[in-house]
Amino acid sequence: VARHRIAVLPGDGIGPEIMNVTLEVLRTAGRRFDVEWEFLEAPIGGAAIDAAGDPLPVETLSLCRRAEAVLLACVGGPKWDNLSSKQRPEAGLLRLRKELEAFANLRPVRTFSQLLDASPLKSELVAGVDLIIVRELTGDVYFGEPRGIEFIPEGNGEREAFNTMLYRESEIDRVAKVAFELAMTRPRRKLCSVDKANVLETSMLWRSRVSTMAASYPDVEFSSMYVDNAAMQLVRYPKQFDVVLTGNMFGDILSDEASMISGSLGMLPSASLGDGTFPAIYEPIHGSAPDIAGQNKANPMACILSATLMLRYSLNRPDMADAIELAITNVLDQGYRTADIMSAGKRLCNCSEIGDKILEAL
Amino acid sequence: VARHRIAVLPGDGIGPEIMNVTLEVLRTAGRRFDVEWEFLEAPIGGAAIDAAGDPLPVETLSLCRRAEAVLLACVGGPKWDNLSSKQRPEAGLLRLRKELEAFANLRPVRTFSQLLDASPLKSELVAGVDLIIVRELTGDVYFGEPRGIEFIPEGNGEREAFNTMLYRESEIDRVAKVAFELAMTRPRRKLCSVDKANVLETSMLWRSRVSTMAASYPDVEFSSMYVDNAAMQLVRYPKQFDVVLTGNMFGDILSDEASMISGSLGMLPSASLGDGTFPAIYEPIHGSAPDIAGQNKANPMACILSATLMLRYSLNRPDMADAIELAITNVLDQGYRTADIMSAGKRLCNCSEIGDKILEAL
Ligand SMILES: CC(C)[C@H](C(=O)O)[C@@H](O)C(=O)O
Ligand SMILES: CC(C)[C@H](C(=O)O)[C@@H](O)C(=O)O
Repeated sequence: VARHRIAVLPGDGIGPEIMNVTLEVLRTAGRRFDVEWEFLEAPIGGAAIDAAGDPLPVETLSLCRRAEAVLLACVGGPKWDNLSSKQRPEAGLLRLRKELEAFANLRPVRTFSQLLDASPLKSELVAGVDLIIVRELTGDVYFGEPRGIEFIPEGNGEREAFNTMLYRESEIDRVAKVAFELAMTRPRRKLCSVDKANVLETSMLWRSRVSTMAASYPDVEFSSMYVDNAAMQLVRYPKQFDVVLTGNMFGDILSDEASMISGSLGMLPSASLGDGTFPAIYEPIHGSAPDIAGQNKANPMACILSATLMLRYSLNRPDMADAIELAITNVLDQGYRTADIMSAGKRLCNCSEIGDKILEAL
Repeated sequence: VARHRIAVLPGDGIGPEIMNVTLEVLRTAGRRFDVEWEFLEAPIGGAAIDAAGDPLPVETLSLCRRAEAVLLACVGGPKWDNLSSKQRPEAGLLRLRKELEAFANLRPVRTFSQLLDASPLKSELVAGVDLIIVRELTGDVYFGEPRGIEFIPEGNGEREAFNTMLYRESEIDRVAKVAFELAMTRPRRKLCSVDKANVLETSMLWRSRVSTMAASYPDVEFSSMYVDNAAMQLVRYPKQFDVVLTGNMFGDILSDEASMISGSLGMLPSASLGDGTFPAIYEPIHGSAPDIAGQNKANPMACILSATLMLRYSLNRPDMADAIELAITNVLDQGYRTADIMSAGKRLCNCSEIGDKILEAL
């Protein structure tokens, strides 16, 4: 019997509902593959603010450090929207990423042939898309100092707000290396780096480092693209992309946009990897969806697929990941759909119902 | 006879080709409506670097200041890509916007019923879209100081690059006011402000100022949205938007993305307005397309439509703007298309051919 110790952070909003289903799926897969799970649950985000006055309590962080991997659902909600930037639920998530040095956020975007109708894009453009966004996750304007809101000197009471977009060479290099190595494992071996090097110094340094590294990967077909153009090209012709490398802020925007290729944010998992010193974090790319929280309506598949990324990248169990992915495929083939991916003639399920179908298929 | 003095900046790449056609259209419309044009042409961007060693020569700027409006095509190209940030073609454009205090960049996005096929989005989602992005244009990380690339103290030769995202209250207020006033003139009276207030102080100040102003416009249906969500919603269901207000960097990304709703960047004009002290700038939102420059393949319609915005906003000639827009509609109805909007069964035209068709229709 293999044993794995996983930190489980359900977070806020729909988080507890989708995490519940995900743990059930892992437990069932565990029985089939002779794996015993030790799930260490802890609060993060708004739940942690309410319980402990801190969006990332020290107990939660140390529990994460002791685990082999961190499985996280989502954080945030209107209840905590008026707190200052360091006290918000989101600050807990950002500190977790930073403390675990999870600098490379992998966001695979692929289409499910059963869900082509769910995409707002024309089916012939999205069928067969298989791209992955590598988003830098512990730098950029998310973390740069100085930041704040201050009165302008001699501004007669006027205030200004500022953040710092910042990258050092070593931060660029380490995430670029992840992206190039990843590109080498993929059939097309393409890498497109996205920046705004026609305006920003941060992007100029980014472009020059990544281009330099490209010379050491002659088998990778490398290109650079401006972020405004990339935002357009992702919609215009997504099949042109294989691996897309970008910074934290641009990656946030582009990956949510790219989710529309698969039809729903509710289908997209992510993996946030460091250099191996600390456990990696696995989380869906969607948010906490306060509007449907507690209603058993959410799509748990992005969270379940995040668990399959954990099985692949942290636990070296591709067999279990394959089995769970197959179960999801079967359930989609049978026509079961949550509301976000519903289309005519399909069978609408709530969160726990679709979970049960996946368990049956397993 | 009315006389109008216009600064004409053809810029780089496809700029001269599309500007040529645009001026022909204005001349023909002028004959019909008894308007005499004084076109003052000057170099900007790469052309100005080559001619005068400066992407915005003082002569160009002072000529712009003496005009009633500035009509600009596009700047940039690989030839000047290795220059430093302050010497690039783009720096000339950015300085022009700043010097003329053109802080409110209006980017209308609408669909042409004749071009629904050209959009990568499903036709039923884009038919009838009529939204306008109000992008702040003289602040944000585009202009914030400090900025640069420096060696890290004690960094053993490692460098870091930084830019400053920055907004003062008065900068937010003046562009927000343009957006609210604009929303008041539109049938749906909706305004959605886009930011990243769950992470950035700059966005928190933005959100708090814009929300405060919303209270003075009770007839406007106001909402705020995070930029990652907005990037998704623009593709998911664009009809939900009417006026979209956002900062310089987010606006750059979202407006290029939104161009796919109309099917091509080649159809989208923009107007950059200040408080009236200086002339406004009218320019297509597309770039200089170096790959097709000099080949007479470009779509001049975004540039021509920018001229119609000039007729409306700066010259108070809605009659002429209507006539030109009608001519474009007729040409599209007749099935003439440039390459970027070509679809099966239509007649492919090059840049000057489509220009001739528009002149005939006028
Ligand atoms: C919740 C928020 C802080 C977060 C981010 O911006 O990184 C989210 O949007 C994401 O993409 O994971
Ligand atoms: C050319 C570039 C500097 C410019 C910008 O980023 O503003 C362009 O992309 C635009 O949108 O007008």
